[in-house]
Amino acid sequence: MSHDNYNTNVPEPALRRLPWYLSYVKLLKRQGRSKVSSTQIAEKINVSATQIAKDLSYVNISGKTRVGYDIDELIAVLEDFLGFKRMHTAVLFGVGSLGAALLSDSGLEQYGLKIHAGFDVDSSVVGQKINKIPVFHSDEFVAKNKKLKAQIGILTVPPYIAQEVADFMISGGIQAIWNFTPFRIRVPEHIVLQNTSLYAHLAVMFNRLAKGDE
Amino acid sequence: MSHDNYNTNVPEPALRRLPWYLSYVKLLKRQGRSKVSSTQIAEKINVSATQIAKDLSYVNISGKTRVGYDIDELIAVLEDFLGFKRMHTAVLFGVGSLGAALLSDSGLEQYGLKIHAGFDVDSSVVGQKINKIPVFHSDEFVAKNKKLKAQIGILTVPPYIAQEVADFMISGGIQAIWNFTPFRIRVPEHIVLQNTSLYAHLAVMFNRLAKGDE
Repeated sequence: MSHDNYNTNVPEPALRRLPWYLSYVKLLKRQGRSKVSSTQIAEKINVSATQIAKDLSYVNISGKTRVGYDIDELIAVLEDFLGFKRMHTAVLFGVGSLGAALLSDSGLEQYGLKIHAGFDVDSSVVGQKINKIPVFHSDEFVAKNKKLKAQIGILTVPPYIAQEVADFMISGGIQAIWNFTPFRIRVPEHIVLQNTSLYAHLAVMFNRLAKGDE
Repeated sequence: MSHDNYNTNVPEPALRRLPWYLSYVKLLKRQGRSKVSSTQIAEKINVSATQIAKDLSYVNISGKTRVGYDIDELIAVLEDFLGFKRMHTAVLFGVGSLGAALLSDSGLEQYGLKIHAGFDVDSSVVGQKINKIPVFHSDEFVAKNKKLKAQIGILTVPPYIAQEVADFMISGGIQAIWNFTPFRIRVPEHIVLQNTSLYAHLAVMFNRLAKGDE
């Protein structure tokens, strides 16, 4: 399978910056603007115009000298390129406090992520629905995922079982793990791993705050 | 104010790695272990033993040659150092889908973050409580925060008003902003800014998945 607009050799830092440009040009659109140059984006985003032009060169769009990019086209191309317009099928393991919160967050669907099921072993949540998403016993995962064919597994279990559950998800066909635990899991080379550690971000923030207090 | 165990010149990458070590040594403790060396941590965490020893040198703990670190002491010192054992006062702006989800996530308290209030302008949420946390009208923030003295402001508003709301939080005394929007906000130099863009992480994951499909 190939995606026409999917340049897959984009460096990760560029991929992480593209959503900033997208949300800024969406703001400009709200303000009634129709064209924007990389210089104009640079003034607001704290990234150099050269870097922005380079990042946007990975995307299938061309700007015109002096006129810049067409905003509607830029939004459409960026959303497509970033994968936000294709729905990706996900499941979530660990319906505790954070897991239940993520199931409740319908906002992820607007960015192309649809969570179809939660899995847990706790009888107080198994059989329940959260935001219309059913929670099954983890034992049912392999069978359920034969039909569902989820590619993405969200990991919100307690850290001490993170590795074990990650291995289990992979054995059931998961190809990308979005790890919200502070545990550093290891995955085979062909598996995509994205760590989002809220706690590491908290630690950085607390430390910088304390610095200001000195 | 100074914190005895707070070395504030720790590089951000080290600060981000320390929670990995913490969650791994907590696992070892559950398994009944009492000592661990940096080499043993390195085998599991994919970080070199030299790097781990260097990172841990920022923390107020000393390992003994051949014996390693005392696990109970390492956990206590890391939790203290990372700020997870002091409660930090936070407020949250934007009680939409993600904002409400974060208010529901009691897990953050275990890592030293206590959200005391939500703020929004939408009459359908103002006056409500989520997970026992009251939601007030944004207009009340400056007055409320004179008593509350929250240092941390969590930003989960729609991206197009992110900058405006960030400025408003700062005007009310917020010293650190935890920005969950995909918008690249700008803050004065003395304000701590931590970006956690779930959408940027999604974009990276989608792109890497597509690469595997080629």
